[in-house]
Amino acid sequence: MKRLDTREAGFEAAFDALLDTARDTTARVDGAVAEIISRVRAEGDAALLELTARFDRWQPRDATALRVTAEEIAEATASINPALMEALDTAATRIETFHRAQMPADITVPDPAGLTLGMRWNAVDAAGLYVPGGKAAYPSSVLMNAIPARVAGVGRVAVAVPTPNGEINPLVLAACGRAGVTEVWRIGGAQAIAALAWGTATIAPVDKVTGPGNAYVAEAKRQVFGRVGIDSIAGPSEVVVLADGAQDPARVAMDLMAQAEHDEAAQSILITDSPALADAVPGAVEAALATLPRSAIAGESWRRHGAVILVRDWAEGAALTDRLAPEHLQVMVADPQGLFARIRHAGAAFLGPWCPEALGDYVAGPNHVLPTGRTARFASGLSVFDFLKRTTWIAAEEAGLRATGPAAVALARAEGLEAHARSIAGRIGVD
Amino acid sequence: MKRLDTREAGFEAAFDALLDTARDTTARVDGAVAEIISRVRAEGDAALLELTARFDRWQPRDATALRVTAEEIAEATASINPALMEALDTAATRIETFHRAQMPADITVPDPAGLTLGMRWNAVDAAGLYVPGGKAAYPSSVLMNAIPARVAGVGRVAVAVPTPNGEINPLVLAACGRAGVTEVWRIGGAQAIAALAWGTATIAPVDKVTGPGNAYVAEAKRQVFGRVGIDSIAGPSEVVVLADGAQDPARVAMDLMAQAEHDEAAQSILITDSPALADAVPGAVEAALATLPRSAIAGESWRRHGAVILVRDWAEGAALTDRLAPEHLQVMVADPQGLFARIRHAGAAFLGPWCPEALGDYVAGPNHVLPTGRTARFASGLSVFDFLKRTTWIAAEEAGLRATGPAAVALARAEGLEAHARSIAGRIGVD
Repeated sequence: MKRLDTREAGFEAAFDALLDTARDTTARVDGAVAEIISRVRAEGDAALLELTARFDRWQPRDATALRVTAEEIAEATASINPALMEALDTAATRIETFHRAQMPADITVPDPAGLTLGMRWNAVDAAGLYVPGGKAAYPSSVLMNAIPARVAGVGRVAVAVPTPNGEINPLVLAACGRAGVTEVWRIGGAQAIAALAWGTATIAPVDKVTGPGNAYVAEAKRQVFGRVGIDSIAGPSEVVVLADGAQDPARVAMDLMAQAEHDEAAQSILITDSPALADAVPGAVEAALATLPRSAIAGESWRRHGAVILVRDWAEGAALTDRLAPEHLQVMVADPQGLFARIRHAGAAFLGPWCPEALGDYVAGPNHVLPTGRTARFASGLSVFDFLKRTTWIAAEEAGLRATGPAAVALARAEGLEAHARSIAGRIGVD
Repeated sequence: MKRLDTREAGFEAAFDALLDTARDTTARVDGAVAEIISRVRAEGDAALLELTARFDRWQPRDATALRVTAEEIAEATASINPALMEALDTAATRIETFHRAQMPADITVPDPAGLTLGMRWNAVDAAGLYVPGGKAAYPSSVLMNAIPARVAGVGRVAVAVPTPNGEINPLVLAACGRAGVTEVWRIGGAQAIAALAWGTATIAPVDKVTGPGNAYVAEAKRQVFGRVGIDSIAGPSEVVVLADGAQDPARVAMDLMAQAEHDEAAQSILITDSPALADAVPGAVEAALATLPRSAIAGESWRRHGAVILVRDWAEGAALTDRLAPEHLQVMVADPQGLFARIRHAGAAFLGPWCPEALGDYVAGPNHVLPTGRTARFASGLSVFDFLKRTTWIAAEEAGLRATGPAAVALARAEGLEAHARSIAGRIGVD
């Protein structure tokens, strides 16, 4: 854990070092991924069966055995204890409500020159959602990917989830069921991304692939980009907590550890204007770590990437936050909305002392798939917009073309595009 | 040119072949581009000076000489003939009006459980726009990239334009001036993209890079993606014209050639329910070609990639159009809005016999940077959305956390994330 103070000489260098530290330790796997994708394109289902046997260590009897049946989804759902199922249902309902509120409206733009202009939104026809298997199988991520797709109006939603040794987390299947996903494939890795993007005899291709995954999945998404759309490629998670002297160090420490427990490469940063809080939190973190089951991971993350930054005032705190452009931003000060209004770059914000980031991971409603690694400078969290695309349109009658056409003819000729010019000029009888 | 008829056996195979024909002949330049980017990152301005001398064949005296001065922009603007300047101004005004209408509103979502939820839009801080030099230097593209960025509220817009042999198209500079761009750099190729993404001592880095370019520019955009945001990577242009028997074959032919004249890899497709029009258009194309200055390019595009498809009815026509998902779609039938409503996938639509696509290239208002190569299935044209990003937010008071927290605690524990659970449970005094 680093401790920085904006009053100290050397602060800028230390902060730059914090910004520039690469936390992503992704191995280079592009060659291996390219080979898997080309095998799936060439051999289709046969490649999927062979690669599943090799990487997931179970042998599907044939390609139809890759699909999870409706009975299996129903059985998995029935196996979940009712209180947990109710929590999942609460989360799903709230996520759906928020994402419905995101839905944009078509526009028609009045035009004094007599054209009619507009912009129409449409969903993609089919989306493929990757869900990691094994220890990182998070049912909350199923909801966060599938619900925006369905709210956007995607006709077909297919989930791919690897089943190492043939095993699947029943809560993941229950989440699929609750989100209305009926097409679930037991495939994983680069081969799953390839099958979704290119299709096989058994699996129809999709138009958009979203969802988190390991280095192979991330690289496969990069390589199929262009053939299909993809969401962003997520790096390790991070939080910046802005807290003033009125905050409880133990709560601040647990908020920092909630991020750190994800992954050794996660990053938790406290920015405070209170020397007393800056002094108290590191000890509170050690006390929290002593009681946490994932303390090895969280402790490693804190030691490697954690930071406590003492600032003179919140103008400084806001400016540093914008330079960090964090995935998650907790604002625990007297006027959280006021401070949030001074910050431009963050994936998601959590306002006030009663709003720990974990609330947003599960039930609040906004998406938990968010831009990491300072990409909040230009990128956004997953939303209905990821599953929609726009078509602009222009409608012209003769009068509108006569009013606007001559300027287009002049510009087309200035660019040396005579057929462009004549396609207009020929209609309105000008040279 | 291919002629297809949905009534004929073998239609499906022929249409699939049309869909699968790769028109993009981009050379693989990834190694060369990676080297250029790493040189610019390591050597900064010195690399820019050397690479500009090598690739653009002029020797800047120092890094400050890479910047176009305000006087040069003013002089270029003064050199344009007034009628052309007026056309540029008409285009800029109309493009600005349309993109203002695209601007989305922030949302606040009411919540019966007592949280407050919302989503806020912000512009990126800085955008870099690439403008190709030489023969493909299109002032209209300057307007189409710079105006959405400025309407979105981007604080700093930097243009990079190569000046082969030190020369620059004055209309490109005039378009920069009209679009309010004051930061213009005489740099091009992969080195320009690297300088925008990573910055040098003279050029500050940006957050988003947009704009068309050659194979080196496209590959450089791919390689800097993640460090900065990019718009889509454009392939060759295409148009699908839907026309019924009432349309004039000569006008249809000129519309097809307006697309074909861009590039030998461009594609122009006519879909019609009229055997007479299907018979008449190929001859009208030959007649048009005989009169066009770019007939060599347009003719080659038409021979290689052009198609006339005869359909039984417009239900078939709409379905085939969706499979093509064209960049540009002209709809020249009795009820163009009605047919457009049945089509889901197109970058931009041009409705009615008085609406040639070229009108939208210049002055109508919607953007002319559009998804190519069937990517309109999932991608959209350039817009203010490319220069904006969203931050979702959650505000909680104690009551809201008490109402929604327990479900989050249950889900966090089901996922094995105890610090997540305790960051909530600790605040509301539950286990």
